[in-house]
Amino acid sequence: MAIKTPQQYIDSLKDGRIVYCNGGRVPDVTEHPILKICRDWVAMDYVLNNDPRYQDLLTEINEAGERASFALMPQRTKEDLLRLREMVKLWARVCFGKPPGAKFVAKDGLNALTVVSQRVDKKYGTNYAERVEGYRDYLQKNDSAFALAMTDVKGDRSLRPSQQTPHQDYYVRIVEERKDGITVRGAKTHISQAPLCNELLMVPCRAMREEDKAYALAFAVPVNSPGVTLISAEPEVHEHGNLFDHPIAGSVYINDATIIFEDVFVPNDRIFLKGEWDFSGQVAYMFANFHRLSAETYKAMELELFTGAATLMAEYNGVERAPHIREKLTWLVMYTEAVEILGRSACEHCISEPDSDLVYPNPLYANICKFYFADNWHQATKYIQDIAGGIVATCPSSKDFFNPEIHDMLDRAFGGKAGVPTEDRLRLVKLIRDLTSSYEDILTIHAEGSLEAQKMSIMVLGDFDRYRASAMRAARIKNPKPHPLFEALPEFPPQL
Amino acid sequence: MAIKTPQQYIDSLKDGRIVYCNGGRVPDVTEHPILKICRDWVAMDYVLNNDPRYQDLLTEINEAGERASFALMPQRTKEDLLRLREMVKLWARVCFGKPPGAKFVAKDGLNALTVVSQRVDKKYGTNYAERVEGYRDYLQKNDSAFALAMTDVKGDRSLRPSQQTPHQDYYVRIVEERKDGITVRGAKTHISQAPLCNELLMVPCRAMREEDKAYALAFAVPVNSPGVTLISAEPEVHEHGNLFDHPIAGSVYINDATIIFEDVFVPNDRIFLKGEWDFSGQVAYMFANFHRLSAETYKAMELELFTGAATLMAEYNGVERAPHIREKLTWLVMYTEAVEILGRSACEHCISEPDSDLVYPNPLYANICKFYFADNWHQATKYIQDIAGGIVATCPSSKDFFNPEIHDMLDRAFGGKAGVPTEDRLRLVKLIRDLTSSYEDILTIHAEGSLEAQKMSIMVLGDFDRYRASAMRAARIKNPKPHPLFEALPEFPPQL
Amino acid sequence: MAIKTPQQYIDSLKDGRIVYCNGGRVPDVTEHPILKICRDWVAMDYVLNNDPRYQDLLTEINEAGERASFALMPQRTKEDLLRLREMVKLWARVCFGKPPGAKFVAKDGLNALTVVSQRVDKKYGTNYAERVEGYRDYLQKNDSAFALAMTDVKGDRSLRPSQQTPHQDYYVRIVEERKDGITVRGAKTHISQAPLCNELLMVPCRAMREEDKAYALAFAVPVNSPGVTLISAEPEVHEHGNLFDHPIAGSVYINDATIIFEDVFVPNDRIFLKGEWDFSGQVAYMFANFHRLSAETYKAMELELFTGAATLMAEYNGVERAPHIREKLTWLVMYTEAVEILGRSACEHCISEPDSDLVYPNPLYANICKFYFADNWHQATKYIQDIAGGIVATCPSSKDFFNPEIHDMLDRAFGGKAGVPTEDRLRLVKLIRDLTSSYEDILTIHAEGSLEAQKMSIMVLGDFDRYRASAMRAARIKNPKPHPLFEALPEFPPQL
Amino acid sequence: MAIKTPQQYIDSLKDGRIVYCNGGRVPDVTEHPILKICRDWVAMDYVLNNDPRYQDLLTEINEAGERASFALMPQRTKEDLLRLREMVKLWARVCFGKPPGAKFVAKDGLNALTVVSQRVDKKYGTNYAERVEGYRDYLQKNDSAFALAMTDVKGDRSLRPSQQTPHQDYYVRIVEERKDGITVRGAKTHISQAPLCNELLMVPCRAMREEDKAYALAFAVPVNSPGVTLISAEPEVHEHGNLFDHPIAGSVYINDATIIFEDVFVPNDRIFLKGEWDFSGQVAYMFANFHRLSAETYKAMELELFTGAATLMAEYNGVERAPHIREKLTWLVMYTEAVEILGRSACEHCISEPDSDLVYPNPLYANICKFYFADNWHQATKYIQDIAGGIVATCPSSKDFFNPEIHDMLDRAFGGKAGVPTEDRLRLVKLIRDLTSSYEDILTIHAEGSLEAQKMSIMVLGDFDRYRASAMRAARIKNPKPHPLFEALPEFPPQL
Repeated sequence: MAIKTPQQYIDSLKDGRIVYCNGGRVPDVTEHPILKICRDWVAMDYVLNNDPRYQDLLTEINEAGERASFALMPQRTKEDLLRLREMVKLWARVCFGKPPGAKFVAKDGLNALTVVSQRVDKKYGTNYAERVEGYRDYLQKNDSAFALAMTDVKGDRSLRPSQQTPHQDYYVRIVEERKDGITVRGAKTHISQAPLCNELLMVPCRAMREEDKAYALAFAVPVNSPGVTLISAEPEVHEHGNLFDHPIAGSVYINDATIIFEDVFVPNDRIFLKGEWDFSGQVAYMFANFHRLSAETYKAMELELFTGAATLMAEYNGVERAPHIREKLTWLVMYTEAVEILGRSACEHCISEPDSDLVYPNPLYANICKFYFADNWHQATKYIQDIAGGIVATCPSSKDFFNPEIHDMLDRAFGGKAGVPTEDRLRLVKLIRDLTSSYEDILTIHAEGSLEAQKMSIMVLGDFDRYRASAMRAARIKNPKPHPLFEALPEFPPQL
Repeated sequence: MAIKTPQQYIDSLKDGRIVYCNGGRVPDVTEHPILKICRDWVAMDYVLNNDPRYQDLLTEINEAGERASFALMPQRTKEDLLRLREMVKLWARVCFGKPPGAKFVAKDGLNALTVVSQRVDKKYGTNYAERVEGYRDYLQKNDSAFALAMTDVKGDRSLRPSQQTPHQDYYVRIVEERKDGITVRGAKTHISQAPLCNELLMVPCRAMREEDKAYALAFAVPVNSPGVTLISAEPEVHEHGNLFDHPIAGSVYINDATIIFEDVFVPNDRIFLKGEWDFSGQVAYMFANFHRLSAETYKAMELELFTGAATLMAEYNGVERAPHIREKLTWLVMYTEAVEILGRSACEHCISEPDSDLVYPNPLYANICKFYFADNWHQATKYIQDIAGGIVATCPSSKDFFNPEIHDMLDRAFGGKAGVPTEDRLRLVKLIRDLTSSYEDILTIHAEGSLEAQKMSIMVLGDFDRYRASAMRAARIKNPKPHPLFEALPEFPPQL
Repeated sequence: MAIKTPQQYIDSLKDGRIVYCNGGRVPDVTEHPILKICRDWVAMDYVLNNDPRYQDLLTEINEAGERASFALMPQRTKEDLLRLREMVKLWARVCFGKPPGAKFVAKDGLNALTVVSQRVDKKYGTNYAERVEGYRDYLQKNDSAFALAMTDVKGDRSLRPSQQTPHQDYYVRIVEERKDGITVRGAKTHISQAPLCNELLMVPCRAMREEDKAYALAFAVPVNSPGVTLISAEPEVHEHGNLFDHPIAGSVYINDATIIFEDVFVPNDRIFLKGEWDFSGQVAYMFANFHRLSAETYKAMELELFTGAATLMAEYNGVERAPHIREKLTWLVMYTEAVEILGRSACEHCISEPDSDLVYPNPLYANICKFYFADNWHQATKYIQDIAGGIVATCPSSKDFFNPEIHDMLDRAFGGKAGVPTEDRLRLVKLIRDLTSSYEDILTIHAEGSLEAQKMSIMVLGDFDRYRASAMRAARIKNPKPHPLFEALPEFPPQL
Repeated sequence: MAIKTPQQYIDSLKDGRIVYCNGGRVPDVTEHPILKICRDWVAMDYVLNNDPRYQDLLTEINEAGERASFALMPQRTKEDLLRLREMVKLWARVCFGKPPGAKFVAKDGLNALTVVSQRVDKKYGTNYAERVEGYRDYLQKNDSAFALAMTDVKGDRSLRPSQQTPHQDYYVRIVEERKDGITVRGAKTHISQAPLCNELLMVPCRAMREEDKAYALAFAVPVNSPGVTLISAEPEVHEHGNLFDHPIAGSVYINDATIIFEDVFVPNDRIFLKGEWDFSGQVAYMFANFHRLSAETYKAMELELFTGAATLMAEYNGVERAPHIREKLTWLVMYTEAVEILGRSACEHCISEPDSDLVYPNPLYANICKFYFADNWHQATKYIQDIAGGIVATCPSSKDFFNPEIHDMLDRAFGGKAGVPTEDRLRLVKLIRDLTSSYEDILTIHAEGSLEAQKMSIMVLGDFDRYRASAMRAARIKNPKPHPLFEALPEFPPQL
């Protein structure tokens, strides 16, 4: 089939899947007023792939001679990474900062499995690599939307999977091994767009020890597999189509769902890790390595939008020349551009994965970028809220604004700088409310790994030998571990 | 009448007022599903005043021999201020951090007018002071809920009221002077709980120049005055009674309304400033001086709640001993207690207003407190969100949680530390979502004056002569303006 | 003798003590060009005590009927603490922010021993309390300058005293017990003004376990005791009397010395703790409780000076109206005043020590104050350096400025705002250099306990039960530990 | 002559120049104990150029067929910039973070004049470009050390050059025009290594207006020109050769001198701007553009050293595994690497100067890098000081440490983790003191332009049209100025 049309994508979702939202079972996810928001957002992947202007960027003829999403192909060069970066930029710019998730997240899980499966096969003589490739072909052939089911519900965070009480299903695990496959149980959460995808790709979210063996598990199943129940995240909005009051939340419903696996059967050819506990952490780690590109690209686009909103708001309020406003806008430009530079540099100085022919962004740079972005977000929201004023909290509904009984009085009252239509000013106010919601805050801090996760990576990846060598030379301390960059440098001060 | 019952308060609101909410005219504000949230919150003032346990703290027998709210009386001693602080603490603790607004804000406008009216009378021979006292008696007699209409809609913030285009009604102004009163026009915004009050007390929000004379205006009118239209802020919640998903937003709807004045008549005895432009800024300034006590008291109570939520969440997730979590909790304790200390100290070191017998909190300390609180809020939200995890964004609706079809699976999946009921954990998650909403952010930054306003005050109030004197002595620079604390100090180093 | 004169103090230091500085043994600490700076600074205690204008504040007739320093008496009421605060303010204002140390630090060690000795006596039947009182009498009688020897050199910070290798003297310990006393060995460091004091009061710096028993030790010895060697901190300045280039460092040399104890004998009546390891941490903790007052008072005076220097520099450079300068000055005012408020509030809300009749500042508030001060210092230095400009680093020596060959050209070149003498501008530049030295930075962070120490205290002292109770009520979670402030509050929202 | 030897450089400085330091006229700058520190540091340029290992990187055969420093050649490609970056890295790594200044700063002034002179010639028919090239040839031929005299002493910062009182020489200006040249007067300050250079290249430090015409001036003169007096910055150290106590300050004395011009004659062929006031700001701006590369490269090397010192100190103290230490080290790695990434990215995405064939680093990225570095420096110093402990302030002089009378006791007392020689630990302590001096702070904030200068540039260079376009599309506001990246994007949400 190769590239699906949006309609084919929509039709593919009518498959009996079990999805709940706002207290009720959803008979058809494609027609539910709120889930439809998620549907249309995911569908943009298909809209764009079918748009001749973007097809060269977004798709590629695969080995089978069919056109397929470039996102479903492994990246092998710096240029591939930079192209992927352009793809993510396009997705993000089109969809107000949030790339539609048909492949956006799960492709990085697939790449992680491509790398790690080869390592596992080498050590244990398994044939996971072949299965992963088979699954990759399947996805390309069906142009599947697939979700990455990674984060377990976790229970008590201070305990390992097998230590949990009162039950052992806080992480997804094998409950039965059969000749033709396995049966699994447990729950995953924060699974973006899962209710609107075709497939779930399940990978572990952490390193395991031997006693957690049953949890060292990676596999794929269709969303409508028996035993799979998806419960939608509580939506931010309560109606479809009100894009005035909710320009972002009304058009992007990521629906980070919770997925319950109740004795779900997985056939052998869709199992990619089964008990090889010593590789569990590697899958999670390699996923992060690949996924850094995505996060760092779309965040830069989000900030472009964010800084634009702050700039316009300052202008609409007539305060753009106030020194403290200029200070804040300057900071926002720095923040926006630094995220772009750091993210791009991670691609420009990418790493070749030794066990495969894949490349991924420089993980030190990538973690710095992600941390920098997430760590400064709340400062940015403070600034934009300060610029925008109390109206972000107190603005009436657009239904009042467009109510003919009071429209004129509101149109007069809410004017800003002369020449700016009141309607535009209010649209911007509502945009800023959406941009600074609790939802956006949480997404920033927790999506693609927490601040602590980045800090741990940075501590591991820092080039401490180089740093130490520099300090020892200056302090005239003999370095027990001479460093190539420093050991041969001439004496300073010189003997003259 | 003296102290009203809650029911009397509710009945008093059925007066034909013109209120809009979510696109429609509200026939009866006491029965509207969302406005009712605001009604019940404001009504707590009456509930508490009638509770024998709190009557001694909250009420007082006035000069007319009737029991009246102590909030409607002027504070004349440090002890009065500390008592007022206890009142605000009680209000705030009862109502999850947000004191119900029957008198909470407007009392400070009334006090400001008490002070400034005496000054105006002295300079211009007017009789405003007497009118203010008359109005105070009226409020006590009727136990009125009254709102302070202060912030004008402002239009272009870089222009003064009389410079605005295309119309001149961005600030409320006199359009006609009559023998028996005046007619006013314009719009005010962010007027907390106005649709659920009896009276509106209108004061200017800034200093004026002579050309802005028509805007130098203070008065009071009943909410149902002809020509007054109130448009509610878009509510955070869309249904009444869902206190699980919205423990704060579902029980406190401040409804910072926009009020349109279309040729509203104000009788002479309710006019407290009319064209005396040189006193306009003083009203705004004195209001801020009095209102600082309120803001700084309830904020400390909000933080108590906030820090409690962060602590519990850490414990429920089993991460309370992780070093980075302890670091964040430590910071939150400091933040919480520093706001308490700074706010209380402003009362303990209060200022006597020379033109009247009123006292108000030390304004330098009070501004520092307010700034400190508002400037650190986003940091606090970052910390609590970091502690709580992605579930704050992705948690299903409580309707799913209580849906018997899936309750058990969710109850198992969302468990945290063993022994903590899942329901409690989810309640806390929802509380944290409410506490970190865009609405709360904006309230923190903009309510009771923006960060820039506090900075300006601090720059004016800083004791620069003392600071300079200290530095000049150390640098051995002759001080042209000898300072009592430094001029007589012994020589250092000494001649020994 | 009661109150000594400055000359008596100086004479008392000529006692054969073993002091090193800058590479050489110092024959007479009162005549050494650099140690003399420390001498004159410490002597200010005696200058002020003999100044009739300050005698009522600084001294008191003791039980023996002699005039003694109030610093040597225990504080028993809030008023005593507030008086002590005024004393520290005077000391600090006179000496450019740094209270002369004749009693400033060690008095708090004495108070700590007063408290803890009673507890030890109670448990172990010792008579330490009596000895402490005897020592207090001795100090009052001789008006001794005494230093608190607290911080051990510590070796490997991850190991306890008895675990250290290659030797066991990283903490001071008992090496021999005799009938008439003990012999001790080890080293203490950062012992402010010790080389210019009469006595050393030695207390432990941390909690001990049973295996560290030999280190659970408190005692006093004269500075010239056999076996005591004092090595001065490397001085900041290299000449005496250049107060132009070094207004602070040239007049205040705290000389935080390192003290080596080599088999020093301590007679029984000067031993205040000897092996009661379970009380070791209490001494350190109680010292901190008492000493908080000092730190938090003088820091506020330092900031007064600091903010004055920043203000004057802005004015001398003609930039005081630039928005970014005003922003920085505003911040400095807040910082300065918040330290004053927090520190004073700790005294106003002081704690009565149950095991004695002493009071000390509220430790939660005091730790918050200290942390706030130290945590923001580097921000303050950034601001003042930004205001002052590169000249702080590049200014010529005053010897060039006063060199008649080039004075006129420098006087013209380094002018600032017209009317400000160039000399004054340069004096200020040099003051700012001194205020932002590495020495000042370190003093800020490490003196009176590190940032981490404060954080640990705050975590222990936070009122978590109250915080939790508030959050549980809002989230409607049943509190297993009902809290008096919350359990009886009326229902909210009310049933109306 | 081409490349000079270090000795030839030293000999070239014995030319009768008028230099003052620490109060006295310096008869021979090459033999003065303190100026010699600066001499040897600058001489490293010559040492390295003569080292065969580095000659290919650092030098190039010029058009005249002679070997010359690549720093004296214009950079025309991205590869040239990246090579220059490697040069600066080498210089900085050799000299403990501070590139020796024989050409390091002034080369960027030369490049700025290369660009701007062509623009001036085009507008005014002058022949400045030819003169600049002549001067470049001269510098290459003589391998001159030249300083950039840019920052004027400025007087009242709120006034323009011609508005200053009481005299007009706060900025360097023409006082006489002659047939063969001009006479100039005024003073420049912060002129790094000028007393140890051969030539001074004078450029204006700001934009001028027509009334400031006499100040719109660029020229070059030898350091020993009649009328030139150089006054050294007060040195950080007071003796030569003590590299233990001052590993940085004892080996790098930048000597940012003040230069007085008293009726100095400049011949026509060394005048590069003379009254063309409308180009004055461009010289300053283009200098900054070129010089960004330098600053951003050596800062990254400084941070490498800084982070190494922090890491080692943590290890020597045995605290490297404490969570709060790891947190700080993680932050330092981010800081170090982000400066490297941002600075390198500015070169990788460089800008071609349209009026010449020169390239320079992307100025938006470069300003962000510089701001990020300078804005975070004080945080970094706080962290390293926190890690190192109070010993940085209280450590005895190395003269005490090496005094045989007390060496052994100090060697025992100041040990850290077992196995680390005490001497190494103390060397590191002293290094950290040097790294966190007031001098380093000021250098960080003010060298290469103040924080405010960077903010202004960023505000000018931010891509606001792009930011606005993104926000308008999301808010559905019609963009009056359609942007190529956004105008053609497909509709979102799609109509499906």
